[in-house]
Order: sequence, then structure tokens, then C-alpha cells
Amino acid sequence: MPEKRKIPETAIGRLSMYRRALSRMASSGCKYVSSADLSAATGFTAAQIRKDLTHFGQFGVPGMGYEVCRLESAISKILGAGLPWRLALVGVGNLGSALLTYRPFKEEGFSIVAVFDNDLVKVGKRWEGVQIEDASRIEEVCRERGVDIGIVTVPADAAQSVVSALVDGGVRAILNFAPRRVEVPEGVRLRNVDLAVELEALCFHLVRERSAGRG
Amino acid sequence: MPEKRKIPETAIGRLSMYRRALSRMASSGCKYVSSADLSAATGFTAAQIRKDLTHFGQFGVPGMGYEVCRLESAISKILGAGLPWRLALVGVGNLGSALLTYRPFKEEGFSIVAVFDNDLVKVGKRWEGVQIEDASRIEEVCRERGVDIGIVTVPADAAQSVVSALVDGGVRAILNFAPRRVEVPEGVRLRNVDLAVELEALCFHLVRERSAGRG
Repeated sequence: MPEKRKIPETAIGRLSMYRRALSRMASSGCKYVSSADLSAATGFTAAQIRKDLTHFGQFGVPGMGYEVCRLESAISKILGAGLPWRLALVGVGNLGSALLTYRPFKEEGFSIVAVFDNDLVKVGKRWEGVQIEDASRIEEVCRERGVDIGIVTVPADAAQSVVSALVDGGVRAILNFAPRRVEVPEGVRLRNVDLAVELEALCFHLVRERSAGRG
Repeated sequence: MPEKRKIPETAIGRLSMYRRALSRMASSGCKYVSSADLSAATGFTAAQIRKDLTHFGQFGVPGMGYEVCRLESAISKILGAGLPWRLALVGVGNLGSALLTYRPFKEEGFSIVAVFDNDLVKVGKRWEGVQIEDASRIEEVCRERGVDIGIVTVPADAAQSVVSALVDGGVRAILNFAPRRVEVPEGVRLRNVDLAVELEALCFHLVRERSAGRG
């Protein structure tokens, strides 16, 4: 089974992007694709792409390139894309509301099966067909509904307690947008998306360029 | 000048997080901090922290640790934090609206000086004190207002043309949330935040754990 091989963490994001490019190509009727085409569509070098794809066995057809549909479905399988992942979102502020309706999530088939807030004005209302539950019920509701992935969009101070409740409810993967370090036990996957850190990284480069006299 | 040394790209995100932790410590009256304290607050190892901080010269006081305020202000200077960066946001959909009111951006002092959309129903309205301009005016308005950083929250198909207009308007750094590869000329910094890719990376690990019999 080629999936059993060790795939480097850094390759995973690239695979997502290959998959998305392949999916667009498939919709526009494209049957074969070269690593150069994928390079043009994704911005990674053809050499990098060929190297990444060797993790999944042989998809190239000599003289033709890769079969778009077979390669897309192989990458999807590896990534678990299209599986009925069940998501819970905690924190229906502006960012949380935006994610509830975020088009790429829907397009990729993620379904939000539970939504929580601790604001009693919001609790009980429906949002995109899902009723907002009281945050005190995170553990119970996640367990009942078999939530796989938790999305955390609460203020920094609340982040750790929310994450712990999700984990207690059986959630095995967490995407944390709160600008605070949170801890998860071993075996639970955590990714942090810190938008202010992203902006500061840009600022860092702007400062350097200015001080180098190019600004 | 220690700032002139080469700081690895991977250290920059960590510096942002050290700075945030230091800022919290300073607000709570803490004067000195050890690398072990910073490790507990940020999740990076003490060894990593000490190594990163050597890029900025000597901030340690023997037997006391680092001076919180001096270290915070030195990192802020390197990162350009607190400088009056001028941001433009393009695409006032759900995600764009959420970012306009995103608390950590405001807390870090970023100010949004221009907002654009191509929906004529939105153009002319005010949002958080800034009037929404027609997207056809991106280049002109960014140049007039001296925009440093552009935030792109438009659908995938519109991303490249928006990014090009920003660059033509003198914008030197772009944070792109559109799930599509965009090109920028040399000298313009680009960071992509792809939320569906973040989710897929989590799914990848869930799939692996399931197939390893742990799910």
C-alpha cells in the first residue's frame, strides 16, 4: 500500500493544492497533465511535484503525463478529502460566522454539525440550519454527534477551556484561530492559524526593505 | 546593528508569538522572564527561544533572565510592530467583514484605510468608519492613501486581478485568503492563508490514524 509510506508534513499542504488544481482541470475536461502543467497551476517546481507524487506510486503514463482523474482521486483518498468529516465550530463572532458560510469549506465537503457559543442571546438560534448550543454542552454534543474536527474562534482567554472540552468530547483534530497557545494531549492534532502573526511576518519584511533603502 | 543579521524565515512567526507573550507579561507587571517562562507561554523549547534571541544581541541579565520590556520593544522594532501600517482590504464578503472587525488586528495597531468591493450595492456604504470603494479604483486609492499591505478576501477567480491592481497601486505586501495561486513581482511579499488546506492537513492525519487502527 503506497499510503503507508511516510509522507513529510511539508508535503501535505502541497498535496491539497495539487488536488485542487487537478479538480479544476478535471472539470474543464482535461484528461492528462504534465508536472510542468501542475507547476504552472500551483507555483511549485515540476521537480518538487514529481518528487511528492512518487509517494503515491506510479501515476505517470509515458508520453502523456499523469491521468488527471486517477491522480486526483488517489490524492483525495490520501488526504481523506470528500469523506463525511463532521465539524464543530465554537465561537459565533464575526470570524466564526464567516467560517460557517466559508464557501471553500462547503465546496470541499466539510459539514458543520454543531455550533457553540457562550452568549445566551445567540444560544438556541439557528445558523445555516444548525442550532447554536450552549458552550457548556461542548463535550456532550460532540460525543453524541461524532464530531471529528473542532474549529475554535473564541477570544484568547477562552481558547484552552474550549479546546479541552472538545478533546473530552472525542474530537481528534483542532483548528485554532484564537491568538493563544493551547495544549492538546498526544494523539490529538492541532493546527493554529494566527492571522496577526501572518500580518507581522509581512511587516517584518517591509521594515527590512525600508531599512535597506528600498522602501 | 544586530537587526542587519540574517534572521531565518521560520523564526519570524516565533518572534511574533514571543512578543505577544511578553506583552501579556508586561501588562501583568512582570519585569524579568526566563527562557523557561517563555517556553511555557509559547510552547517552543527554551533552547529554541535562546537561539532565536541571539539574533538580536544580548538581552539576558545574569541570574535574572531577560528584561521583559526591553526584549518586547526590541522584538517589536524588528517586526515593525506598532508602526502605523496602512492596510487595504478587498472583498467585503463574510470573511472580509470578519477581518475588518478582527480584534487582534486592532490590538496590534493595524489600521484599515481602504476597503473595496465590486458589488455596487456595497460600494459607497461605510464599514467601521471606512467607505467601501469600487474595486475598479484599487490602484488609484491605494496610491493616494499610501497603502502598505493588502488583504485579499475575494473569490478564487478574482484573486489575480485584485492582487495585480494592489501591486500597481504600490502595495508591497499581500495577505491572500483566496484559495488560488496568485503571482506577484519580485520585491512584493505574499503570504497565503488557505483555510481549506489547513482543514485537509488535519483530515490527512485522521485518515492515517484510522487506517492504523487507532480511530
